[in-house]
Amino acid sequence: MKTIALSLIAAGVVACMAVRGEVDTTPDYVKEIPPGYRDWRLISVAREEGELDDVRAVLGNDVAIEAYRAGRLPFPDGAIIARIAWSLDASDENNAAFGRAQSFVAGHPKNGLQFMVRDSKRYASSGGWGYAQFDDGKPAADTVVNACFPCHRAAEARDFVFTRYAP
Amino acid sequence: MKTIALSLIAAGVVACMAVRGEVDTTPDYVKEIPPGYRDWRLISVAREEGELDDVRAVLGNDVAIEAYRAGRLPFPDGAIIARIAWSLDASDENNAAFGRAQSFVAGHPKNGLQFMVRDSKRYASSGGWGYAQFDDGKPAADTVVNACFPCHRAAEARDFVFTRYAP
Repeated sequence: MKTIALSLIAAGVVACMAVRGEVDTTPDYVKEIPPGYRDWRLISVAREEGELDDVRAVLGNDVAIEAYRAGRLPFPDGAIIARIAWSLDASDENNAAFGRAQSFVAGHPKNGLQFMVRDSKRYASSGGWGYAQFDDGKPAADTVVNACFPCHRAAEARDFVFTRYAP
Repeated sequence: MKTIALSLIAAGVVACMAVRGEVDTTPDYVKEIPPGYRDWRLISVAREEGELDDVRAVLGNDVAIEAYRAGRLPFPDGAIIARIAWSLDASDENNAAFGRAQSFVAGHPKNGLQFMVRDSKRYASSGGWGYAQFDDGKPAADTVVNACFPCHRAAEARDFVFTRYAP
């Protein structure tokens, strides 16, 4: 429901601006999976419970990693941050080795691939970041991606990026 | 307790062989942190509950990653696998954005750094892998590292490596 509500708000804002004859601020989303993302370096890992119910890794291309490590904000143009997620599956094999049930490992890919692409001019209307989600390799509908920026505004003080670098 | 028991077994085996005048099979452990490991590519992520209580990432150097992706076993000499771990902390910030308590992120480094270094000759007595653990940057006592190989024997069919590659 929250996703739908935020999408409607975003769509409403764009519609109002169009009616008023302002510049086209239709969000410009990323429609191609950035090549080589699976080779990027690790920013951090996380666990989402609830409906998402996944374990995730956040990776950064060289520009993003260097900015993270230097504590540089805003991120420079060219930075790309990737979020991969998997089911979190109990590992019978690991549990047998540990002698107790305690181990959960990444299972099948889940909840799509997400990206934030920094281009301060192209994506000026969404904080300088282009957002993307790919489900089974295909870009998600704009109505899905519309929810990204409104939610990421909560992290505006860190250039709209939630994930912190894990040492 | 299990760790101690396994260490004692390993120490006992080595002592017996020494008494019998056999070749020196004292385990040869890795005493230096492999340089650049934090720049290596991601193999997978996992969550350990129980006493470990961490979230972890397993990274591989180029030799390891290429072997993983090619499904090549045994791993070739030069492969190194790194295990980093952090506390798994509730994220108030993320939870506020999601509108519910569901988000846990990597916190402070925890449970040391661990490595498996493939050198089939040097580490022939432990399945071709040299094991290492570093706590606060310093190598753990051999009595700690003695427990690695006996436990990893459970994964002998996969060249003693528990972690599977996460796509």
